[in-house]
Amino acid sequence: MPVFEKEEYKMRLKKVKEKMDQAGMQVLLATHPANMNYLTGYDGWSFYVHQGVLVFIDKEEPIWFGREQDSNGAKITTWLKDENIIGYEDDYVQSLVKHPMEFVADILKDKGYEKANIGLEMDNYYFTAKCYNTLQNELNKADFKDANRLVPLVRQIKSDKELEYMKMAARIVENTMQTAIDNIEEGVREGDAAAKVYEAQIRGTEDFTGDYTAIAPIMPSAERTSTAHLTWTDRRYQKGDVVLLELAGSKNKYHAPLSRTLYIGDPPQDLQDIAKTVVDGLNKTLDFIEPGISCEEVEEKWRESISGSKVVKESRVGYSYGLNYPPDWGEHTASLRPGDKTILKPGMTFHFMPGIWLDKFGFENSEPFYVTEDGCETFVDFPRKLFLK
Amino acid sequence: MPVFEKEEYKMRLKKVKEKMDQAGMQVLLATHPANMNYLTGYDGWSFYVHQGVLVFIDKEEPIWFGREQDSNGAKITTWLKDENIIGYEDDYVQSLVKHPMEFVADILKDKGYEKANIGLEMDNYYFTAKCYNTLQNELNKADFKDANRLVPLVRQIKSDKELEYMKMAARIVENTMQTAIDNIEEGVREGDAAAKVYEAQIRGTEDFTGDYTAIAPIMPSAERTSTAHLTWTDRRYQKGDVVLLELAGSKNKYHAPLSRTLYIGDPPQDLQDIAKTVVDGLNKTLDFIEPGISCEEVEEKWRESISGSKVVKESRVGYSYGLNYPPDWGEHTASLRPGDKTILKPGMTFHFMPGIWLDKFGFENSEPFYVTEDGCETFVDFPRKLFLK
Repeated sequence: MPVFEKEEYKMRLKKVKEKMDQAGMQVLLATHPANMNYLTGYDGWSFYVHQGVLVFIDKEEPIWFGREQDSNGAKITTWLKDENIIGYEDDYVQSLVKHPMEFVADILKDKGYEKANIGLEMDNYYFTAKCYNTLQNELNKADFKDANRLVPLVRQIKSDKELEYMKMAARIVENTMQTAIDNIEEGVREGDAAAKVYEAQIRGTEDFTGDYTAIAPIMPSAERTSTAHLTWTDRRYQKGDVVLLELAGSKNKYHAPLSRTLYIGDPPQDLQDIAKTVVDGLNKTLDFIEPGISCEEVEEKWRESISGSKVVKESRVGYSYGLNYPPDWGEHTASLRPGDKTILKPGMTFHFMPGIWLDKFGFENSEPFYVTEDGCETFVDFPRKLFLK
Repeated sequence: MPVFEKEEYKMRLKKVKEKMDQAGMQVLLATHPANMNYLTGYDGWSFYVHQGVLVFIDKEEPIWFGREQDSNGAKITTWLKDENIIGYEDDYVQSLVKHPMEFVADILKDKGYEKANIGLEMDNYYFTAKCYNTLQNELNKADFKDANRLVPLVRQIKSDKELEYMKMAARIVENTMQTAIDNIEEGVREGDAAAKVYEAQIRGTEDFTGDYTAIAPIMPSAERTSTAHLTWTDRRYQKGDVVLLELAGSKNKYHAPLSRTLYIGDPPQDLQDIAKTVVDGLNKTLDFIEPGISCEEVEEKWRESISGSKVVKESRVGYSYGLNYPPDWGEHTASLRPGDKTILKPGMTFHFMPGIWLDKFGFENSEPFYVTEDGCETFVDFPRKLFLK
């Protein structure tokens, strides 16, 4: 059973069709698993084979296509009629002589869309160069347009029910972050702390369990904190370690990411100074956020808040996020950085993530938030500070 | 520090360059995270942005490129000289006006390869249609070839050290499977059992911890076992549930996948019959496997072993696997299915996975194995049967 009412899916589809119409598209091929889920409810770890949802501007229901052994999964998890769930034979999988996009082209030809204007998600992990080449060869009278951001731009504004799932994810990440801080000690293997983090992510709360997250727990220590995306090792924590924790909770694939930093021992003055600067800057920036301002103004406020300090942040300080699958919980639409003129609107959700990675160590203290009618609210209730053990 | 000696990486590179030479390629752009790791040791959850390794037929060392904030990660985890690690500025990330493949094209032009014959991984999650279009536009005098299987075909044959990591992963999955079976009971939430599974995967053994696996634990129950790739829910297990468990261990991103099936209560006769047929067929097929036979002969032996039973298996019964990252631990080279004429050689590793998904329930009992000089050995020591609770 899908996790939203059928009416909510139909509303999403209506918005997507409006955007298709504006762009002159008759067909949209959505292959990103988050877009597939958003439109139909489809949920399964089958995105390692080619699959997708075809939206037709002149047809009520989309078509789900995928590997035959996953079509029962589509029957269970989507709101679509069985006749709109089409599985391809197994010999299309990772074949040298057949490609699943030939199957898709056959569906489109069969339904009379071989000359249509077709939207494709051109910069999406789940639409490869070969997918594109195959469609071009099979449908040489069709017109292809880049629809990479079409569904994500609709996803950007969350409904109350979506915010509810994101708040459930926030309860999970609060427990998870506390579990991490409780378990990290001098002498403990990093992997043992990571095991407890995973357990907390999935166990969830007494009322609901959690889902797998789109990014694994990022939790490097010591010199490995000088970079953004390392996980754990067999190493045992030592006195003098900085530990970065970028963790998340997920409910129905809606996320709550959260970063904190922990120090084992007496923290050096420069780390304490950076922590104070970042947390103050974060607080000032959150106070500033309201609908009507732009993403670049948020970043500008952050930069102004930390000016005069030694902290320099070269990369973006946040991004929109929500429903997602590996490898990323980001929506790949708005970023909090110079040049991004996206205007904040109620229901948008961002991970404000001013991560600092210096040559010797890093510091992270992030907050996920949603834009309200007159400001913003953070999803998570967790102290903003450098944690000490 | 990379997890293999520098000599092993150099040997891999030599084999890759031989294949490039045979294909007439001067440059290979490897963007699949497993291929990047295999060639350089690079290991980080940064594959959600564009990154890769450039191999030049006439240069000793490859070049790693990626997001600037990940370049310290490359310095920490690869054997490459710092000068061969090149980070791009953050405004390339998910931008509407710049693409990281422009940065790659600039590197290639700068080094005089703008007219080269360049191998691209055309059907890989981490090389999108837009990556391809961008390179075509920026390097319009270059010749592009599909190198999707070039590195994976080298990866197919494992060294002793690689087999050692896969055996470590096997110890982890034995513990993990036992943990799953111990924790699944009538009345327990599926998510609570999944939490214990994750904890066991990462905690590993007393001697080493585990890494994240390329596929999340697949563990549907009841009617959700009629399909291949569903995970857990908040539902509580009930008497009469079939539970499928497709789990894995991972060490240094080398995997050991394993599937088993559990029934809560007195199992129906048809499930018992299927279990017996599948396990007998599996045993007979494993006895048959030796170097020199082909993948399709393995599948034929399996089909012959179950002939006369009611079991019908339409999809492939296994695939090569090993080092990998989400979303798949499969190598996307050889499959155990009709038409695959790959000859088995010592050091090849397969997941023999005769999963059966019927309309009402499924049954899985798999074995990962490696081809030896005179037969095959399974990695895992775990009873082959229908488990009962």
